[in-house]
Amino acid sequence: MAVTSMPVLRRLAVSLLAAALLGGGAVLAADSGPAIEITRNGAHPALPGPAARFTGRATVSELLAAHAPSRISVGSVSFEPGARSAWHTHPAGQILIVTAGLGWVQQEGSSIEKMRPGDVVWIPPGVKHWHGASATNGVTHLAIQEAVDGRNVEWLEAVGDDQYHR
Amino acid sequence: MAVTSMPVLRRLAVSLLAAALLGGGAVLAADSGPAIEITRNGAHPALPGPAARFTGRATVSELLAAHAPSRISVGSVSFEPGARSAWHTHPAGQILIVTAGLGWVQQEGSSIEKMRPGDVVWIPPGVKHWHGASATNGVTHLAIQEAVDGRNVEWLEAVGDDQYHR
Repeated sequence: MAVTSMPVLRRLAVSLLAAALLGGGAVLAADSGPAIEITRNGAHPALPGPAARFTGRATVSELLAAHAPSRISVGSVSFEPGARSAWHTHPAGQILIVTAGLGWVQQEGSSIEKMRPGDVVWIPPGVKHWHGASATNGVTHLAIQEAVDGRNVEWLEAVGDDQYHR
Repeated sequence: MAVTSMPVLRRLAVSLLAAALLGGGAVLAADSGPAIEITRNGAHPALPGPAARFTGRATVSELLAAHAPSRISVGSVSFEPGARSAWHTHPAGQILIVTAGLGWVQQEGSSIEKMRPGDVVWIPPGVKHWHGASATNGVTHLAIQEAVDGRNVEWLEAVGDDQYHR
């Protein structure tokens, strides 16, 4: 009996300890409510932009996923010279903040505009556009967007060389 | 009659020209719908943070005002060493992206946490907190927040030296 009871007691003790630890965490959360979260530089790898959505070499780093009830997510996108996104729209718009390099952005039917570090670009909901590097210099920008029904972008056709170099 | 009619005709011509120009602008907007807006680096001055909301020297640059229906605004805040915001809350939360220096952020009831360039801080709605420079190094961060009923912050009491240096 003593032989079998010890494992039972040990399991009970482990269960109580686990419950206490988990319960302590839950109580802490209940005591303090929502907590500030710091996502450290390097927490998310820079991933290659898929060929269906980018022409040339681009990398996308997620910086912050949306924290409900907020629908805002933030990423950082880097384009090598000549690289650009496909045409696309955002259901709730998008904000770009250029952090390095020299970029281009174009709204359908308008001319290509340059964007430089410190420039902030507001892309209204539903506006068909593309953005990326200039032909000679790469660019990095933050991208801030809100999701609508879980989606924050609608991808369209690629930006051909004729359009990009016009 | 000829003397008085010319000014009338001139005024009519000016009115028609103005209407054509304004109408042209309106038609352009109607044709193309919402347009991408680029706010250039330097478009908004960095203004001193008011003493009721900041301890020490801080400057605030608005980068982007909210464009309805979006409620998101973006600013850049720089704190000299030792400077910090007052305690405050955000009705829809706030995202900080550190762009330079070494900062501190604290949620009420928790310890002071460091934040460094590339770190992203999510501050949930209603969480009482402050942020600013470390004691020895200044910090600059982007601040992204959503307005609720036109307000995106609720200011509270200052962070005293005893709290800041704890």
